[in-house]
Formats: sequence, structure tokens, C-alpha cells
Amino acid sequence: MKYTRRKFVKTLGAGSALLMLSAIPTFSEPLFTGDKKLGVALVGLGNYATHELAPALQETSLCYLSGIVTGTPAKAERWRSQYNIPGSNIYNYENFDKIIDNESIDVVYVVLPNSMHHEFVIRAAKAGKHVFCEKPMALSVKECEEMIDACSKAGVKLFVGYRLHSDPYHKAAMKFRAEGDSGILYVQSEFGFKIGDPTQWRLKKALAGGGAMMDLGIYAIQAARYSIGKEPQSVTAQEYKTDPQKFAEVDETITWQMEFPGGHVSNSYTSYSTPANNLYISTERRWFNLMPAFNYGGIEGRTNEGELNFPRINQQAVQMDTFSNCIINNIESDASGKEGLKDLKVIEAIYKSIENGSKVKV
Amino acid sequence: MKYTRRKFVKTLGAGSALLMLSAIPTFSEPLFTGDKKLGVALVGLGNYATHELAPALQETSLCYLSGIVTGTPAKAERWRSQYNIPGSNIYNYENFDKIIDNESIDVVYVVLPNSMHHEFVIRAAKAGKHVFCEKPMALSVKECEEMIDACSKAGVKLFVGYRLHSDPYHKAAMKFRAEGDSGILYVQSEFGFKIGDPTQWRLKKALAGGGAMMDLGIYAIQAARYSIGKEPQSVTAQEYKTDPQKFAEVDETITWQMEFPGGHVSNSYTSYSTPANNLYISTERRWFNLMPAFNYGGIEGRTNEGELNFPRINQQAVQMDTFSNCIINNIESDASGKEGLKDLKVIEAIYKSIENGSKVKV
Repeated sequence: MKYTRRKFVKTLGAGSALLMLSAIPTFSEPLFTGDKKLGVALVGLGNYATHELAPALQETSLCYLSGIVTGTPAKAERWRSQYNIPGSNIYNYENFDKIIDNESIDVVYVVLPNSMHHEFVIRAAKAGKHVFCEKPMALSVKECEEMIDACSKAGVKLFVGYRLHSDPYHKAAMKFRAEGDSGILYVQSEFGFKIGDPTQWRLKKALAGGGAMMDLGIYAIQAARYSIGKEPQSVTAQEYKTDPQKFAEVDETITWQMEFPGGHVSNSYTSYSTPANNLYISTERRWFNLMPAFNYGGIEGRTNEGELNFPRINQQAVQMDTFSNCIINNIESDASGKEGLKDLKVIEAIYKSIENGSKVKV
Repeated sequence: MKYTRRKFVKTLGAGSALLMLSAIPTFSEPLFTGDKKLGVALVGLGNYATHELAPALQETSLCYLSGIVTGTPAKAERWRSQYNIPGSNIYNYENFDKIIDNESIDVVYVVLPNSMHHEFVIRAAKAGKHVFCEKPMALSVKECEEMIDACSKAGVKLFVGYRLHSDPYHKAAMKFRAEGDSGILYVQSEFGFKIGDPTQWRLKKALAGGGAMMDLGIYAIQAARYSIGKEPQSVTAQEYKTDPQKFAEVDETITWQMEFPGGHVSNSYTSYSTPANNLYISTERRWFNLMPAFNYGGIEGRTNEGELNFPRINQQAVQMDTFSNCIINNIESDASGKEGLKDLKVIEAIYKSIENGSKVKV
């Protein structure tokens, strides 16, 4: 069966935004035919762009890899031949703004080091392009607000690369609270791994803005927020450092607690030293667990009722198709810039709590 | 095959105390014959004594239910007929001290509300009896020290009812750190359930000394301590209350973090409102998880290498046989009064951290 665009739109019209996303879990078939796919230009050809996003863009139904932005001519040449990208769709960081004249690029996907998100999202917006931006959205609340403002003024949509919003296990986590009893919710979320190369940009404050918290902790914040379905009112946080040389500029390990309206509590952990990869949600009578929780694939889940078994998806492909669908059909995304801003508010409160040694209002 | 006492002692002599305990995991057969079993008197015939300890004492090899101490004559009568206990082995709280003259009682097992542990352990010691005492050992470090002192002066052994020291899943947790890589250890432990009857002694500060922390949190402290195999140097803790009426006197929900030498960290949760029942241990390359972790039975476990499958044991029976073995063969227990004292030191630091809103040295 092929979905026509008309049928697709009709299906989408039947429910809320969340239900709509649930209705299109795998994109194994094109969702509509007859219209051109959105052209996506990747900005920053690092590991994630190279090994995840570019391959995913070979599987997407609503968008495709139409351009690249890179400061490395050798990379440009390699990508050009590998993905058959026209020379006119290849930019560097200096001439990037000329992308405004390129009709075959509808979306700019910013996959640069964190500190460059702010600049390139705003430049993309000024060039009239919709923007996908990797997480963390930026280094501060102020930057996020400026990025949202720029996209709003330019009339373009801004999305943050929260790939797990597209994952069926995490969609189940989001829905868990609504089924059966509500009770007191407790969420325990933790994401860490041992980071390698001590010279990488992720360990430099000027480029990364922070360490494990900015890179991995944000997943645990996200998971607590979408499992509980509310915004935290206050946080407490504690920092630990075992390798002050490697982690001279950024955080190595942090534990933090969030208090939500209604007495809901989350307790979390992130680390660049020790692996951890769990999400646990508990109500009065039911529980939900993902372990491993935050991988690109191979997520495993169980609840008080038994094992969860969802089909494995390409998170990045579904994410980009979901964002594209929001653009095409003018739908508000649950992974918009506003969502990215909320996480930065929490992260700023966490760092402030560590600095003050006390509870901080979000 | 029957173990003779000689063979048993020889087996025990072959390794360390921990290995010795590992060597006698199920007590499916008597460990020695020819000597009399130790007589155990239960003090306080509440739920745990009635539904767990008394039935377990029907399965033990090295000890048996020889007496009871209760303030309720109707209970005395019921137990006397059910367990064939001689009238001369039945005491109340007033005449309890006469137990000194009773040669058929070797051990007193104190299963009273927490606030009464201190008094009855000391009275039992003064009566020359070895003591098993339920957890938490007492309400304070000071009480624990007095109890240890009294038992030491009386030349009797003091054990705390840490039933999970006898459980194969928790023995595996204790051993996990020693196998393979050591790396940075992270432990996440959480134990909570929704407590029922709002009039019960566990919600009264004078009797319980505290709420979820004293009753359930202590398991999470224990698990972190024996998984890491070191003593915490400092703690931070946070308290949450959703039902100030029900929990007017004691803590409802607490999260806390412990810092151990070598940079090891634990992050824990306990609650009388929301169920949680997990233990997660992570090193650089390996992980270990129990969920549920703290039940009397039905513990399930898995590691990075696959499922754990240990035989289900009667934790209470193995615990009491293990303690009895320590008495018979004069072995130091890993669940002695000193171990109970260590937990109370942590608990006092947790309550102090909540009060001060800051990090507290243990």
C-alpha cells in the first residue's frame, strides 16, 4: 500500500500531534508521492553527520541529502562523490550565507560543536532555511532565546535533534504516565560513557559549553521531563571529578535531582567516566524500565507487565522525516527550539546548584 | 551426603569469611550432626517474626525456634501450640531477663520496633545470650556503640538481620567489583514501596526513629556499600514530602548521594510513597543489575554478559544458619553489630545533610 499525500494528511488530521507521530513509526513506505522531498544540507561533517545522519538521509522519505557545509575541501570532495552532491550545493563556513539563493536546499542541519550552534542557526534562519540543530541546542538560555527569535522573525521552523522523540521505546515512556494509575511518579535516568581522546572538542569549555551534562546528561533531563510530562520547579546537583587533568575545563560526573509539580521527583546521573544507560519510571503500582535506554539502537524495555518489543528503527531517519512532515504540513513539533530552551534552563540551574551547593529554582 | 562437623569445619577453614559463607549457600542438608542446634527465642511477634522468621526456623539446620518473648498472652498461646514451644520458654517483656537461666535458649532475635532494639539487645547480652537484631540496628550511632559494647563485655556475638548478605544475587553484587576491570564504580540503588496503614508504628518517630530511610533506605545504603566495598566519605541528601499529614513525624521520600574513596559514587532513592526496587552497578566496561533487587524472593538479575540465574533460597533461614555457624565456629560475621553501626553513621549524616542543605562528612 502506498500512502497518497491526501490520505497521509487525512490520517494526520485525526489526532493530536503526539498521536500523529505515533501513527508514522517506521516510514518504511513513502508517506506521499508526487511532491519533491525537502533538501537537507548538513553543516559540519563530523562523526555524527558522517556515520549517522548521511546514511539515515538515504532512508528518509520526506527529505534527502542535498548539500553540505564544511571547512575541509578534502571532505567536500569525498562527500560530493559518495553522495552525488552537485558542486553548487557545497559551501564552506565563509560563503555559507549564499545558501539563501539555493532553492534545492530547504533545511540546514547544524551538526557543529555546541558553541557554533547559535551562530549557524541564526545565519541559516537569515538565509530563509528551516533548521535542524543538534543537541544541546546552545550553550545558554540567552542563546536559545535569540535562536528562537531569529527563526520566528525569518518565518522558518527550528527543531532540535532529539532523536529519541522518534523512538518507539521512548514514545512508550512518554505515554506511560497516562495509562492506568497516575500516583506519585518517580523517574531515575542516567546516561554516561567513558570518553576517549582527551584532545577532542567535547572536553573544551569554549566549544562544548560543558562536559557530560551538556552531551549526555541532557538525555536524562529529557527522559525525566517527558516521562513526567511536566517542567521541573527546582533542582539540586552534585559534581564529582576523578581526573582533574582530563576534565580541567568541563564536568566529568554529575548527579542531580529535579522536583516537579505534584511531588514528582527524578534522580539522575551523567558521566564521561563510567557507563550508565538506564531509564526507570515508577508509579504507585506500575513501573517501566529501559536498559539500555539511550542508544541509537538495541534499546531494551520491560514493564511490570512484561517485555517490550518494538521494531528497531533508524532514529535519525524517522526524526528527520518527522521534522520534515512538520514543515510540509505546518505542524508544531515536540522537539522544537522551545523544547531545547527548556533543557538549557534546567542545565543552567544544575550548574548554578553545583556552584552554590544549594537548591535552585528552574 | 551428610557433612560431619569435622568436615564442615575443615571446609570453612579453607578460605576467607566471605568465601566460607559462599560455600554454604542453601543449607539443604545439615552441616554437621551430633551437636544440638542453637535455640533461638524471637522477641516481638509481629509480621516479620510471624510470617518470615518462624517459618524459616522450620528450615534451618543449625538453629531452631526454642522460645518466644511477647507482651500478648493470646499470641503466646497460639505460638505455643503451633510450634510446640514449652511454657518454660515463653517470656514477656517484664520477666525477659530471667532468660539468663534458660539453657535451651542460646540466641535472642530482637524483632521489636526500632526504638526497642537498644534496650532488648543490651538486656539479652546481660542475660548471656547471643543476639540477632533486626535492621536498622538502632536509632543512633550512640545506641549502636552501646549495644556493641554491651555484647562485647558479655562475651556474646551480635548480628544484624541483613538477610540480603545471605542471598546469592547480593553475594554476586559484592563480588562484582573484584572480577575483571575495576575502573570507576557507580552504584545506583533504590528501594521504596507505598506504605499502608497510617497508624502503624513505622510512621511514629518515637518508635521508628525515621521513615522510609530507616526501613528501606538502609537497604540501598547497604547495597551501595557492599557493591563498592568501601565506606562513604561524605553524603548529600534531599527530602521530599507529598503527604505532610501521613508523614508528619517521619521522612516519606529521600534521595541521597555518597562519595567513596577513589571517586566512586552512589545515587539512591527511598520512598514510602512510590515503589522502586533496583540495584545497578557500573564499571568502565561492565554492569550488573538486580530488578527487583530487595525482595524476600523473586530477585532477578542480569549483567553485561547475560541473565543471572541463582536458585531461590529462604533468605531468613540461610541468614540464621549463617549467623549460627559464626557462633558455633567463632567466625566474625560480615553482618555484625559493627556493620549495623556503619549504616547508622551514614543515616545520621543523611539526616544532617537534609537539615543543613549541604554536604556532610560521614
